[in-house]
Amino acid sequence: MSAAASDARWLSAAARLASRARPASYPNPGVGCILIKDGVVVGRGWTAPGGRPHAECAALAEAGESARGAIAYVTLEPCAHRSERGPACSDLLVEAGVARVVAGVEDPDPRTAGDGFARLREAGIEAQLLPSPDATASLAGYLTRAHSARPHVTLKLAMSLDGCTAMADGTSQWITGKAARAHVHARRAQADAILVGGGTWRADKPRLDVRLPGLEDRSPQRVMLTRGVAPDGVKVINRPDQIASLDALYLYVEAGSNIAASLLGTDLVDRLELYRAPIVIGGGRGAIGDLGLANLADAHGRWTLVERRQLGSDSFEAYSRRR
Amino acid sequence: MSAAASDARWLSAAARLASRARPASYPNPGVGCILIKDGVVVGRGWTAPGGRPHAECAALAEAGESARGAIAYVTLEPCAHRSERGPACSDLLVEAGVARVVAGVEDPDPRTAGDGFARLREAGIEAQLLPSPDATASLAGYLTRAHSARPHVTLKLAMSLDGCTAMADGTSQWITGKAARAHVHARRAQADAILVGGGTWRADKPRLDVRLPGLEDRSPQRVMLTRGVAPDGVKVINRPDQIASLDALYLYVEAGSNIAASLLGTDLVDRLELYRAPIVIGGGRGAIGDLGLANLADAHGRWTLVERRQLGSDSFEAYSRRR
Repeated sequence: MSAAASDARWLSAAARLASRARPASYPNPGVGCILIKDGVVVGRGWTAPGGRPHAECAALAEAGESARGAIAYVTLEPCAHRSERGPACSDLLVEAGVARVVAGVEDPDPRTAGDGFARLREAGIEAQLLPSPDATASLAGYLTRAHSARPHVTLKLAMSLDGCTAMADGTSQWITGKAARAHVHARRAQADAILVGGGTWRADKPRLDVRLPGLEDRSPQRVMLTRGVAPDGVKVINRPDQIASLDALYLYVEAGSNIAASLLGTDLVDRLELYRAPIVIGGGRGAIGDLGLANLADAHGRWTLVERRQLGSDSFEAYSRRR
Repeated sequence: MSAAASDARWLSAAARLASRARPASYPNPGVGCILIKDGVVVGRGWTAPGGRPHAECAALAEAGESARGAIAYVTLEPCAHRSERGPACSDLLVEAGVARVVAGVEDPDPRTAGDGFARLREAGIEAQLLPSPDATASLAGYLTRAHSARPHVTLKLAMSLDGCTAMADGTSQWITGKAARAHVHARRAQADAILVGGGTWRADKPRLDVRLPGLEDRSPQRVMLTRGVAPDGVKVINRPDQIASLDALYLYVEAGSNIAASLLGTDLVDRLELYRAPIVIGGGRGAIGDLGLANLADAHGRWTLVERRQLGSDSFEAYSRRR
């Protein structure tokens, strides 16, 4: 394997570590870091709950003296700003004597934004940005917040082969099977907030919590998009663009066809997650309401399949919005 | 590999050969035959256009003297009936001196129905039925005709991720891309007849022919399910159950939501073929009309995913009806 391919693989591994930080690292991004010396992993870290310590700090602590001369692979540029909550990671990497730092994404935070790399280079450390699709994907919430001033939005749909999310009378329990429903709970556990519409709330009385052993405390903030009043413990927004005001990097949407159309029509959906059961309903409710699509050509080129797996007899697919 | 596993693999290979016979072998089933001697293929055959010579006859002709002592793998029990059009295959296998015959499906034709095996055994040849899912699948049209007195029915649907087959105004050109459309033409070339509804005919004026180089002469019989009058060159049926009257083992349905619902509602669909483009339409036309489904539980347990592939940016899936 070439050196560049090897670097890319270590960054992908760091991105997988980063997923452990989500969503507990909120409001900080979930970052992953791996320290390699002589081809061997000597330290691993990811952002701790609440955001500190950072991933680099945790990896350096694990490596101890072995960090000297190691290569640090980090999903995000090491921070350059000192804070009351802890030292800057670029300073920590200098002190630990690493030989080289490879990061997958430049930090858009104006307090770092290239200064992390600069500080490392000033100290004689080789610091390199190697753009990594996996690192970028692992930072989707943070990057969407930085570039679009709103959380990253995942729209989940569970449907039949003919694209129905319910029978004509509204019955939707159950289209998908147990494995798919458990997968939904695991996905909820990775979100900072869950959005439903008033109609879904009244019809299904969804608990919107995480009912997986050991993850019960991961139930995210519940948000309702409605013109009406929300039940206790549920935050209300009145318009789709008000998702910007949510304390969230990742918003998971479990909504009916109108809310889905409203979010898609304003181009606020970054990821579609489809659960498809091997059943035919026929004449049931469509997944997504009118988007005001002017012609079919406009619908093309917007979505890329990024994940597919089988969950029991159901199929799961994730599509990412091309931007 | 065990002897039984090896036998099963050779039957699967024979089933792949059989696909070369479809649909030109009509009205005969498309059968495949492989002759193996000392682990080496010495003859291969599949049913010729029009039905004769049969697969065994073709494989024996290729093998010549090497057939003596060989094992014959055939998807369907060798025929026992002598006809003006040619000798019985069981007699030919006896004459050629094969040591053993393994078939994947017993022939439901009352002129054979076990007599093929019996005649081989009388001649001292080891003759064995080894039920083979691949052989059964390759004979789907013939077996459906024999057991249900109608052709095997494939319903094709091309849709968006949200299950729309057209925009609300009926526009459906184009949802899927070139690779998917070429795949449809290849699938048409494997059918004996294509069914559309009057609405689709009037709206799309579909040519329903095979526009692939070298396969132009494979364009199947065109059939319309309508209460009205058909255009020249198109056969008319008025009710779904009249598909039984078609001169066809394989019927390919390219129809709108009403005809689709009518065929599914009468449980006449054996295979669903879905082409899904990575687009969202929203508020478009549903794929399948009202089936009269009483409750969701009834929709489950009917369809099994049997094939999935990527065609450019579109996904292809085939589901088989469990019977």
